[in-house]
Amino acid sequence: MQEAQSVAQSVGLVVPQTAHFTEPLPLKSGGVLPQYDLVYETYGTLNAARSNAVLVCHALSGSHHVAGVHADGSVGWWDNLVGPGKPLDTNRFFVIGVNNLGGCYGSSGPNAINPATGKPWGADFPFVTVEDWVDAQARLADRLGIERFAAVVGGSLGGMQALSWTLQYPDRVAHALVIASAPKLTAQNIAFNEVARQAILKDPDFHAGHYYEHGVVPTRGLALARMIGHITYLSDDAMGQKFGRALRHDKPVFSYDVEFEIESYLRYQGDKFAGYFDANTYLLTTKALDYYDPAFDYNGDLVAALERAKADYLVVSFTTDWRFAPSRSREIVYALMHSDRRVSYAEIDCAAGHDSFLLDEPQYHAVLQAYIDNIQL
Amino acid sequence: MQEAQSVAQSVGLVVPQTAHFTEPLPLKSGGVLPQYDLVYETYGTLNAARSNAVLVCHALSGSHHVAGVHADGSVGWWDNLVGPGKPLDTNRFFVIGVNNLGGCYGSSGPNAINPATGKPWGADFPFVTVEDWVDAQARLADRLGIERFAAVVGGSLGGMQALSWTLQYPDRVAHALVIASAPKLTAQNIAFNEVARQAILKDPDFHAGHYYEHGVVPTRGLALARMIGHITYLSDDAMGQKFGRALRHDKPVFSYDVEFEIESYLRYQGDKFAGYFDANTYLLTTKALDYYDPAFDYNGDLVAALERAKADYLVVSFTTDWRFAPSRSREIVYALMHSDRRVSYAEIDCAAGHDSFLLDEPQYHAVLQAYIDNIQL
Repeated sequence: MQEAQSVAQSVGLVVPQTAHFTEPLPLKSGGVLPQYDLVYETYGTLNAARSNAVLVCHALSGSHHVAGVHADGSVGWWDNLVGPGKPLDTNRFFVIGVNNLGGCYGSSGPNAINPATGKPWGADFPFVTVEDWVDAQARLADRLGIERFAAVVGGSLGGMQALSWTLQYPDRVAHALVIASAPKLTAQNIAFNEVARQAILKDPDFHAGHYYEHGVVPTRGLALARMIGHITYLSDDAMGQKFGRALRHDKPVFSYDVEFEIESYLRYQGDKFAGYFDANTYLLTTKALDYYDPAFDYNGDLVAALERAKADYLVVSFTTDWRFAPSRSREIVYALMHSDRRVSYAEIDCAAGHDSFLLDEPQYHAVLQAYIDNIQL
Repeated sequence: MQEAQSVAQSVGLVVPQTAHFTEPLPLKSGGVLPQYDLVYETYGTLNAARSNAVLVCHALSGSHHVAGVHADGSVGWWDNLVGPGKPLDTNRFFVIGVNNLGGCYGSSGPNAINPATGKPWGADFPFVTVEDWVDAQARLADRLGIERFAAVVGGSLGGMQALSWTLQYPDRVAHALVIASAPKLTAQNIAFNEVARQAILKDPDFHAGHYYEHGVVPTRGLALARMIGHITYLSDDAMGQKFGRALRHDKPVFSYDVEFEIESYLRYQGDKFAGYFDANTYLLTTKALDYYDPAFDYNGDLVAALERAKADYLVVSFTTDWRFAPSRSREIVYALMHSDRRVSYAEIDCAAGHDSFLLDEPQYHAVLQAYIDNIQL
């Protein structure tokens, strides 16, 4: 079955679209976005009943480019999951990927032009939250004529959006797939985000967030942030299996150049990321992660917070994920069960840590496919 | 018993001493230190048989100031363990603390004057390893007339030194106490060190390690390094219990100032550390950690590496330590058992993570006291 999937067709060449919104968007921070753009992609065809739409929400560094191939050859970040004959089958579903507000891939965000000034927003782009993203996505759904999603799907921060959809728009989501996620960050999660932010904020090239005008990019800070992130995306075991203590040379050479292969890997990942991602978007997105807490207005009672939900849920975690460990997914599952929601839960034995949600691990994809195949349109 | 300990006397006012060595020290890197100073402290009295000496080895940011009080009021970092009537009882033992080579508390290191140039060593100070530290400590023991230690004791990186003592000088150590340690770093351990190093190396104030001459200190990088370190010293649970998601204000204020208390804690720890520790020492010490691998010359066979040891061992780990988890201590225990060494092992249930080894957790101190009380002089 897996081999059949891996040779399944791609959705092929896709072209991002832009939706411009002129109705001001009130934000959780108290601010307002007077107008904004959302860049999105779609795969498959919306059926006549408009009942087969699935929204895929992206995580920290993701984008609207979920599946298929761009003209420049870049493949969507969840292309192994979304396509004809794949678990999220575009022969059956109309799938939407959208770049969140504050992002750096074409939707309104710090690196986009602020219409009020004609210059990049930079640090003046307002704080955005998971709830704000969902509100903006709901307006895109309105625009596309989608009253109710067959499913909203996401991993990590994307899973938080899927969960939030079922709380903000309970009548507009039939199923939520919440993968490798958590109901809120722990102190340790926030701590890692804070170190990453400080690396960026303290970079002399950051210029209080207005580095665009200075013709520089805080690459040092952004690379450090990504290196820290990467450590938390991989399991200790996965790093051990992939790199262990493998040396670049046959014995230590005693220098600050690359000595162990894990150092080379981290530096490469950091530098690569700093070459394409926007530092302000990184800051905003880690803050959105920190702030997310659906139980905040319920005195921390997640069961009470989830009582307004009407969706069915699939919650998936990975045994070696220590960023959002299975225990964090179980918090969601227990709260949903106490709120009398229908919830399926799978804990996948996969060595790859948090990043497992991006891989096509057979058991994982089989669980997703089984659940998605049973979704009634 | 614990209360009796907590009111036990301190060793009182202590004054560091300096030993100058003119015999060149060959280093594992292939270099040589032509001459060097070691700063040390002693507590208690060496007995006539010279059989009651105990060496305490420090970890990443520790020093020779193990116990007692300096004239400036600063208390030794293991004062809860070392003193009259304490588990390492200075009424019975002659305890030595020494600042390692490459340190920044008075022993020869990057911030000390290079006799060859009359300027601070800076980046020219050679790489030092756990084995080099042990060699230097052995010369200090010679100077103090100590042929054989009743015990060598250390936590974390200090535990690696205690282990290495029993391999480099098997006839000179009766007991090794290896606490919250590991036989070598994992890829993940190295990864955290590497991010910390990159934060320092990329700080514009680092000036290739010769910042002393520029009148600046790479405080940004050093603070980031410490923040990263601190996350790994505490358990997820301990951070959760101490800070959780506690906000500075009654609700989020949406800014990059301190929002959650954990952010305030980390920033404070980072800034404080950057105010007194030396960045080059931090770099050198993390490299010493990375390089330590007693099984390297034995094709990774730790049992073979430990066969030359003659000491008895106490190995201690802490359940919530994820930097050097109990499984890492058990690697040492199993290898020692297969090498037919006498080894006691305790896994202490303590919530504080890696930093537990510095605390006076009752069960932990009781284990140390029971073992130390049984040491024959």
